[in-house]
Amino acid sequence: MTVLAFGARLAAEFAAGRHLCAGIDPHAPLLAYWGLADDAAGAERMGREVVAAAAGVAACVKPQVAFFERFGSAGFAALERVLADARDAGLLVVADVKRGDIGSSFGAYADAWLAPGSPLEADAMTAVAYQGFGSLAGAFAHVRDHGKGLFVLAATSNPEAREVQRAVRDDARSVARAMVEDAEAFNASAAPGAAAGAVGSVGVVLGATLDLADFGIDIAKPASGPTLPVLAPGFGHQGARIEQAAQIFGGIGHALLANESRSILAGGADGLAGRVRERAEAIAAALGASRV
Amino acid sequence: MTVLAFGARLAAEFAAGRHLCAGIDPHAPLLAYWGLADDAAGAERMGREVVAAAAGVAACVKPQVAFFERFGSAGFAALERVLADARDAGLLVVADVKRGDIGSSFGAYADAWLAPGSPLEADAMTAVAYQGFGSLAGAFAHVRDHGKGLFVLAATSNPEAREVQRAVRDDARSVARAMVEDAEAFNASAAPGAAAGAVGSVGVVLGATLDLADFGIDIAKPASGPTLPVLAPGFGHQGARIEQAAQIFGGIGHALLANESRSILAGGADGLAGRVRERAEAIAAALGASRV
Repeated sequence: MTVLAFGARLAAEFAAGRHLCAGIDPHAPLLAYWGLADDAAGAERMGREVVAAAAGVAACVKPQVAFFERFGSAGFAALERVLADARDAGLLVVADVKRGDIGSSFGAYADAWLAPGSPLEADAMTAVAYQGFGSLAGAFAHVRDHGKGLFVLAATSNPEAREVQRAVRDDARSVARAMVEDAEAFNASAAPGAAAGAVGSVGVVLGATLDLADFGIDIAKPASGPTLPVLAPGFGHQGARIEQAAQIFGGIGHALLANESRSILAGGADGLAGRVRERAEAIAAALGASRV
Repeated sequence: MTVLAFGARLAAEFAAGRHLCAGIDPHAPLLAYWGLADDAAGAERMGREVVAAAAGVAACVKPQVAFFERFGSAGFAALERVLADARDAGLLVVADVKRGDIGSSFGAYADAWLAPGSPLEADAMTAVAYQGFGSLAGAFAHVRDHGKGLFVLAATSNPEAREVQRAVRDDARSVARAMVEDAEAFNASAAPGAAAGAVGSVGVVLGATLDLADFGIDIAKPASGPTLPVLAPGFGHQGARIEQAAQIFGGIGHALLANESRSILAGGADGLAGRVRERAEAIAAALGASRV
């Protein structure tokens, strides 16, 4: 069986005009607002409603796993059912787990979230490389062989992030810039001779509210090799405007997943499908994609 | 009810001569060697055997959560039973989860692992601050009010870690050094006027095989405020010698948890209790503590 690379699956979403990544954030205040209990069943209900509203409209859903983890094994059982719904709906799932470790330990996290048949199988996961980009190697086989993706934190929007992400490495690159370039280099080496416009399977997380130059990231730089996927929180409620995406991300934003959570979820369960569609269409229009 | 601070509970372990943190690492090759199935039940069995062997002998146990997470909700249910055993045995538990995120998301991880009554409640958790030390603030209330602890990754032993951890921040400190000093500053502010010899509740992870000066960490520096807890992997199988602890950690190693996993686990289930006791005694002797 030929397995389609995650980057190729992303490219198909973009070609269909889908760039929205709908967040699933069942935190206590939001569950209360939705009239749901602050327990695993409430989180599951919110997750499955978002999946139903996003199917065929958004490119992907992104459950924030912390909000399930706080319920222990019951929360993970709830998440497993949300993930199964998303698979049945043909939605890509980015598990927002921000896992990071080394060697066989990170390999076990990658197995949890990316191994075919795992109870928590998603299409991609977010990862943190405080221990170096190479510490994530335990996921690379799933990327290469099983059509899975990885989004590595590069530059994020919380004020304290600058301390680490702007720090200058021995090779004079900022930590954030190196994450971007290491992801690009992985994609180039994983798909030598990729066609123009091909999308890589390893991406980065870049906050849309940031001035990326301030993090040492050169957004004018033309990509060599496959286009880098960018998962960008910060649109919608957090203040970045999707119409500004070209200015924010420049030459590195051509494979953009715009994550929105609050703009979709904060209105409650009523009208959810309409809000998802409205945001998906606004994002598609702003990015010049065909409309959904 | 007065809640004893995590640092005070650590200090009591040290006073009793207990410095060993016994790892629980149910990865596939080790489960096979133990004659256990590579599933949640196998991981649970290994975990509960380590707890039984460590009770009263080690200061704490440290489950590597990645090896439970790969089994999904069933793995977390297994881990919940291991944690319950450890609580019943009076063992401190450091959940090795290396979680990192911001705001309410990190708060949810802290609730999962540190909130009293949570199904996954442990005594302390490991955390990663790629998004800055302040991104971990969601755990501080559990530290201050619920007797919980945090071990923040500072300098780790995998070769790729240097890229990030040696990087130089805007304030000219290395990323690793700032993690150490931010943890010390938190402890000082959380316990103003602490007695001499008091142990803080926020510690760091420092690899015992490293030359910490190479990471910009000054081990000669006398601590101001409570003593910084240091969770140190690298002893035993990985090559660092516990007899060298004073040279490795200098002035910042006075509240040392020596983590050993392979030296204890690799021999299989037979003789486990004897190996835990042997390593605990060797560590106590080397650190000049009273023998267990």
